[in-house]
Amino acid sequence: MPHPFDEAMALHPLGEHRWAGATHPAYANMVGPFGGVTAAVLLQAALRHPARLGDPVALTVNFAGPVSDGPFELEARPLRTNRSTQHWTLQLSQDGQPCAGGSAVFAQRRSTWGAGEAAPPEGMPPADALPRAPTTGLPAWTQAYDMRHAPGETGFGLDGVEQDHSESRLWVRDHPPRPLDFPALAALADSFFPRVFVRRRRFAAIGTVSLSTYFHADAAQLAALGEAHLLARARAWAFHDGYHDQSGGLWTADGRLLASTHQMVYYRD
Amino acid sequence: MPHPFDEAMALHPLGEHRWAGATHPAYANMVGPFGGVTAAVLLQAALRHPARLGDPVALTVNFAGPVSDGPFELEARPLRTNRSTQHWTLQLSQDGQPCAGGSAVFAQRRSTWGAGEAAPPEGMPPADALPRAPTTGLPAWTQAYDMRHAPGETGFGLDGVEQDHSESRLWVRDHPPRPLDFPALAALADSFFPRVFVRRRRFAAIGTVSLSTYFHADAAQLAALGEAHLLARARAWAFHDGYHDQSGGLWTADGRLLASTHQMVYYRD
Repeated sequence: MPHPFDEAMALHPLGEHRWAGATHPAYANMVGPFGGVTAAVLLQAALRHPARLGDPVALTVNFAGPVSDGPFELEARPLRTNRSTQHWTLQLSQDGQPCAGGSAVFAQRRSTWGAGEAAPPEGMPPADALPRAPTTGLPAWTQAYDMRHAPGETGFGLDGVEQDHSESRLWVRDHPPRPLDFPALAALADSFFPRVFVRRRRFAAIGTVSLSTYFHADAAQLAALGEAHLLARARAWAFHDGYHDQSGGLWTADGRLLASTHQMVYYRD
Repeated sequence: MPHPFDEAMALHPLGEHRWAGATHPAYANMVGPFGGVTAAVLLQAALRHPARLGDPVALTVNFAGPVSDGPFELEARPLRTNRSTQHWTLQLSQDGQPCAGGSAVFAQRRSTWGAGEAAPPEGMPPADALPRAPTTGLPAWTQAYDMRHAPGETGFGLDGVEQDHSESRLWVRDHPPRPLDFPALAALADSFFPRVFVRRRRFAAIGTVSLSTYFHADAAQLAALGEAHLLARARAWAFHDGYHDQSGGLWTADGRLLASTHQMVYYRD
């Protein structure tokens, strides 16, 4: 049996720069698909492109309009190819209407001096020592992730008592487990619950409008991690007049940052 | 006399979705223009577009290749316009070759519950009590900014003694002073020196490949700030195999976040 994520990433070539794909019920959100899988499948189109150079280092997806459950068409077009970098423009359409646009930068990375700086959540018990967060009553996509929150934390509360911060700290991986690759990491980067739910401890109508993820590892380094849980944290910088941002990171168990990820989110009171 | 930034933002319509512009010597970098002004002029094209809806909430610019000093052509095309949001694709070309691509999300914002969360640098003396950072020996664009670093900090050191972090804390504004608007804020968001200079306390060959900025204020709120210095901080999350990221913020003197900004940067050893 293929993993549902691999089914969601399946693309059929339609011609130069164009692919056909479809939403997958395992990644359904309240309305349409989970945005992380939309970002992942746009990245997948560039990864599948015969002219692709190197590995992704940056991905931006703008969610321009609702995606309906069902088939879609992708375009991944090299904007410019340099000696060691390649720039892409990405688009997802349904019935000729653009639903998401985006861009990616790929690169052939070389070994250099390096250093980590932002730290993963401290003092986290091992993933095995924490319960998997319940997904009862939540959209289907949440069942496709195994999230284990820091002691005393939950995905978000529902008592309406505002917190003074929106930080979440957790272990996360695909469920069922699946070896890590760039599309999976791109989707995991969008798996944090909206910060406005966490800060206000209640639901709100929300929608990510723009998502950018930076990748700090290459394909071999991701593959070597197998199905391990990743350490994750996310918080907002500010909530103002209907839009809040979010910055987060995904680290290996030994503290190596794999991706930093940022987004801007529409919210209603 | 017009401000040099206004001269750098001057565009001449070439037809639907297209404008002509040119680099400005006041914003020259080591090679070609300062990337912040390239980002700003791409945003300016959307701001000038007759079909523009609302204010920018998110801007991404991918620096696809070198921009030469001289004229360029811009394209700003609405990808999709919804009831209260509008998605744009942006491109800067020279001699028909794409040098930068990007996207923006605009929105008509409404008053909602809000909260700040990320804090500006603490304990900063007033800007007037700090010296302006010298720009001797640095590219022209640095003279177009008034940067005042926290006591004990400089833009970056040159002694080659690696620090254990890459954080910078400063006051910053245009120089000469100029009333704040979205293009100026977009350029200020790229005015932090490369984090690899700060962390390693030495120069390196670098180039931003992707820059995303989220705006947390509307045009009237920016205009009300006039020419005031902004509080700023930036740091990297990680440096690995030729690429490092950077996250930063720009706040009013009383701690209101105006923009959060993120980028991925190529560096050489």
